Amino acid sequence: MPSAQTRTRTFRPLPVPSVTLGGLFGERQDAVCATTAETLLDRCVEAGMLDAIDVTKPSPGIVIPLQPWSGSTQMFWDSDLGKSIETVAYSLYRKPNPKLEARVDAIIDLYEKLQDEDGYVNAWFQRIQPEKRWSNLRDFHELYCAGHLMEGAVAYYQATGKRKLLDIMCRFADYMITMFGHGEGQIPGYCGHEEIELALVKLARVTGERKYLDLSKFFIDERGTEPHYFTQEAIRDGRDPKNFIQKTYEYSQSHKPVREQTHVVGHAVRAMYLYSGMADIAAEYGDDSLTKALETLWSDLVTRQMYITGGIGPAASNEGFTEPYDLPNESAYAETCASVGLVFWANRMLGRGPNRDYADIMEQALYNGALSGLSLDGKTFFYENPLESAGKHHRWVWHHCPCCPPNIARLVASIGSYMYAVADDEIAVHLYGESQARFEIAGTVVTLAQQTRYPWDGAIALTLGGLETPQSFAISLRIPGWAKGAKLTVGAEPVDLAAVTVDGYARIERIWSAGDQMRLDLPLNPRFLHANPLVRQDAGRAALMRGPLVYCAEEVDNGTGLNRLTVTGDPQAAREASVEGLKNAVALDLDAEQDRADWGSTLYREAPPQTQPAKARFVPYALWDNRAPGEMLVWMRRPDGRQTKTGSGA
Amino acid sequence: MPSAQTRTRTFRPLPVPSVTLGGLFGERQDAVCATTAETLLDRCVEAGMLDAIDVTKPSPGIVIPLQPWSGSTQMFWDSDLGKSIETVAYSLYRKPNPKLEARVDAIIDLYEKLQDEDGYVNAWFQRIQPEKRWSNLRDFHELYCAGHLMEGAVAYYQATGKRKLLDIMCRFADYMITMFGHGEGQIPGYCGHEEIELALVKLARVTGERKYLDLSKFFIDERGTEPHYFTQEAIRDGRDPKNFIQKTYEYSQSHKPVREQTHVVGHAVRAMYLYSGMADIAAEYGDDSLTKALETLWSDLVTRQMYITGGIGPAASNEGFTEPYDLPNESAYAETCASVGLVFWANRMLGRGPNRDYADIMEQALYNGALSGLSLDGKTFFYENPLESAGKHHRWVWHHCPCCPPNIARLVASIGSYMYAVADDEIAVHLYGESQARFEIAGTVVTLAQQTRYPWDGAIALTLGGLETPQSFAISLRIPGWAKGAKLTVGAEPVDLAAVTVDGYARIERIWSAGDQMRLDLPLNPRFLHANPLVRQDAGRAALMRGPLVYCAEEVDNGTGLNRLTVTGDPQAAREASVEGLKNAVALDLDAEQDRADWGSTLYREAPPQTQPAKARFVPYALWDNRAPGEMLVWMRRPDGRQTKTGSGA
Repeated sequence: MPSAQTRTRTFRPLPVPSVTLGGLFGERQDAVCATTAETLLDRCVEAGMLDAIDVTKPSPGIVIPLQPWSGSTQMFWDSDLGKSIETVAYSLYRKPNPKLEARVDAIIDLYEKLQDEDGYVNAWFQRIQPEKRWSNLRDFHELYCAGHLMEGAVAYYQATGKRKLLDIMCRFADYMITMFGHGEGQIPGYCGHEEIELALVKLARVTGERKYLDLSKFFIDERGTEPHYFTQEAIRDGRDPKNFIQKTYEYSQSHKPVREQTHVVGHAVRAMYLYSGMADIAAEYGDDSLTKALETLWSDLVTRQMYITGGIGPAASNEGFTEPYDLPNESAYAETCASVGLVFWANRMLGRGPNRDYADIMEQALYNGALSGLSLDGKTFFYENPLESAGKHHRWVWHHCPCCPPNIARLVASIGSYMYAVADDEIAVHLYGESQARFEIAGTVVTLAQQTRYPWDGAIALTLGGLETPQSFAISLRIPGWAKGAKLTVGAEPVDLAAVTVDGYARIERIWSAGDQMRLDLPLNPRFLHANPLVRQDAGRAALMRGPLVYCAEEVDNGTGLNRLTVTGDPQAAREASVEGLKNAVALDLDAEQDRADWGSTLYREAPPQTQPAKARFVPYALWDNRAPGEMLVWMRRPDGRQTKTGSGA
Repeated sequence: MPSAQTRTRTFRPLPVPSVTLGGLFGERQDAVCATTAETLLDRCVEAGMLDAIDVTKPSPGIVIPLQPWSGSTQMFWDSDLGKSIETVAYSLYRKPNPKLEARVDAIIDLYEKLQDEDGYVNAWFQRIQPEKRWSNLRDFHELYCAGHLMEGAVAYYQATGKRKLLDIMCRFADYMITMFGHGEGQIPGYCGHEEIELALVKLARVTGERKYLDLSKFFIDERGTEPHYFTQEAIRDGRDPKNFIQKTYEYSQSHKPVREQTHVVGHAVRAMYLYSGMADIAAEYGDDSLTKALETLWSDLVTRQMYITGGIGPAASNEGFTEPYDLPNESAYAETCASVGLVFWANRMLGRGPNRDYADIMEQALYNGALSGLSLDGKTFFYENPLESAGKHHRWVWHHCPCCPPNIARLVASIGSYMYAVADDEIAVHLYGESQARFEIAGTVVTLAQQTRYPWDGAIALTLGGLETPQSFAISLRIPGWAKGAKLTVGAEPVDLAAVTVDGYARIERIWSAGDQMRLDLPLNPRFLHANPLVRQDAGRAALMRGPLVYCAEEVDNGTGLNRLTVTGDPQAAREASVEGLKNAVALDLDAEQDRADWGSTLYREAPPQTQPAKARFVPYALWDNRAPGEMLVWMRRPDGRQTKTGSGA
């Protein structure tokens, strides 16, 4: 939890164009620029999304059939376009692309023509089911779609200076302000799928209009209050409120007012978007009652409900949470969007001061459960991110619900913004990686360069630039919890980390000049992690990590039958190898024993399997299924627990 | 596989009333007589099934809504009534019950009035959707329902001498003979859910009418031939044959002609009923081409696709089979009906001679995966039989698809018939248990009494009676594969088992006289079994067995967190205890180590869990969830494989 003294400060992420990336994320951004951004637009077009918003064409009608909840994933098409526009916007900073920009301009022109007089914009409720407008906030994602278009509008305006979509969405937001509230004829409701809350904050920040913040706060404050809006809405329209396919309002975190919520429940992406919006409003209004609720929810998530990959939401049935410590590996849903959402939330929890509790998890979710959603070439995607596969789980080209591809793409394309945050007198470095950051502190332009091969190597050289005149301020460098034995030098001086570390950040406050250098050494410590014994699915097993990266074994390296392996080798003695097919990612090789497959003709027998010596190769989890398809396994059998009968202590 | 010399013989199960049971199955039959039989009728009535067949009442219409496959489980109501009638019939042998008999008579009267002039009987297609008769054999269970009514009719006739339902079903079968075939206007098809095949064989045997055998053989021979009937049928009615919710004809084992099938696929209950019917027809027609296919399918099932409980069909999605060696424990579907069906099939595979390969599996499925479906008090049921539960899987009172309760009930009520089979000059004892059997051999009445506490104790005393004059014949006693060190004495003479054992049966051929005794000692050998290493879900784990019983750990005995236990104790040194709440079942207590739950505040950490000494109590799997609800686990962590680094051999 953040120490009390840091609560009062405000840290703003650096704007996306203020950070230029090399290294791993530079390469991934190049892939987004080269292929993903265009791929997203292409596939949106192929899916028929432009026909849906083009008023000069006949309505396409219901292309994706209605489901038992009376809706269709086609209802979310605006959100897919919104996130794709956002991705393109960020990509333009790194690589101007007039062709892509023109395509987005054309889409925005269609939205301009689509918008109603009153400001309303939504392809489904204008063109497919106009009679259903505002009829079912619980299920129909109406404000969710608006939120994603707003995020796209803000990003596109910031990247290009073009205001058209921003103006469209401001008009829509102004209309929402008239529509939502407790006044006569107003709707005292909120969206079943959170998103509008955080989007309105972005809109407010870019326009300076506090009214958008107020609407966001209204949605957050109203959520889960009684009489329950979703119940009232159903009764109003003659629907049975109990006839709800998800059964409980926990699904949309509207089972009780948000400040009273203590357990992370329901649909995982919705939860992350809500908490992100709550964190924004907490920061904007200095609302400690929200921050307190968020701290409780955070603790519940990361100590009881999070996969080691930062994947969250184990169940397909509700795309979300089940019971504490229930983390099945092979059937893990762990939607890419949910891990992306966890990065969003963690980043916003850093808005009130650097704190390793949040930044470590942000990094863990980013490098593992989120990044796994995008192939190395930027062309194929995971929706679910299981921690074990028997060989049939593969990246796909497109999905009937293509929410994940543009979500991970917009995160990757904007990742610089998550690496650094700046306050009046302090810059925080949350994430490491080859990069150049530009910011302003006390009116002075400062640059901060990281030279590093991180995450493949833990040596990071930081060099300050700009600074026409020396300036006093603090630089806070995250010392990851896993980096046992980290070392820092400022200039030639070794720093006593224990003395300067606050909330897990080494805080160096001094007068900085251009050319000042720091050197941070983060031992990547290849290590096995064990899960709390209450996680039944991981009993007797361990997961290999190195730095922030979770590792896994793949069939392409180890043959079939990954559960036949027991990894006996000491991770500190792991041999490193560079894998060409994975853009020279660092693989780790360990000794293992393998249950022999020459078993005989019965399925069950008294004699345990014979074993034979073997090697196990591990590669970063996020990179699996980029080579020959096959099995994958994160939690490997380990002899540890059983060798040391009394355990080796906590 | 059966040795060739035994193939030519025919063994018939003893009729149900020829065996009187004590011991475990006697108690279970008492529960069926005292509660289950009546419970089944009560719940069929409560579900509205009588309204559906009572022509003096208005049609109840669609009570259970149509599903995406255009049908409803309500379509199977006739089958539930058929199996319930069959259960009542068997129960009457053990305990005459005029009230129950009168209720069945009243139901039969309703069916008599329901039957059409042409012989057709089916509640759904006469009263709910008459226009759909014979329109969708693939999905609508029309002949399946008829099959279960036939089985009920045969059993009720045998138990009571009352022919009314038998005559009704003969008229229906006669009508089917006119309807099905390759003649002008006939249907060249078969039912998507097999059952009619084995039912027609029963009808043929009780009536002596070969025409019913011929119709059964027609259905078996037609299955999976081209042009495919289900495709033709869909095209005929303007349905898209590709629009099949189960996607592949493997679902109904109609993807190829049955004699060409080599892998057990699709819906598990359908598969078992098909193979049972095939085995009947193989026996009736001496059709070795069917037997050969069945032997291949049997081997595929028991060496690659069967849970240690005899549960089969791991997946809920198709209620059936997935990939070889894919046997997930917590999500195991393993429908009660499927294990019941495996008992049916195994029993029929014994029709061409005693063979331990079939009888051992029959016993394994019976005592574990099937019997688990019925609570000790006979009032509640399992549909799915997982091998692990986190605490939320419980027996239910009724189900929207109540196929399992009457299925396990009719099996239990008729189990004597599965224990013994008789040929012209031989009696085979397939199963052990306190019982008295009556049969005729070479025209002489013989009784065979088993005195035993089996399965709790392996000592079995067999005494011959009847036999007014001594008679020469063979008695074949199964020596279970697990009974290492079994001993047999005939009179006072020890028998050299190796010398007399044929296909796993000790075959004692001599002149038998009344009062002759045999004593069989089957060491129950508490033992851990390991799964083939290709079963990824059981790696590093073992399952405890004693005699034919699979054991499990329950929360009520061991506390929560069963996966925190590693069982270190030697099963041979297990301490036995009698559990009062489980009708004095034998529990086994073993030493164990337990991962300590005092773990700290993070979900993952480097230090493996500390362990503490513990005890693990095991109870028979089939009896779980009869006491306080909670977790359950079959496959327990074991140190074996890792202690002996090179393994201890096969």
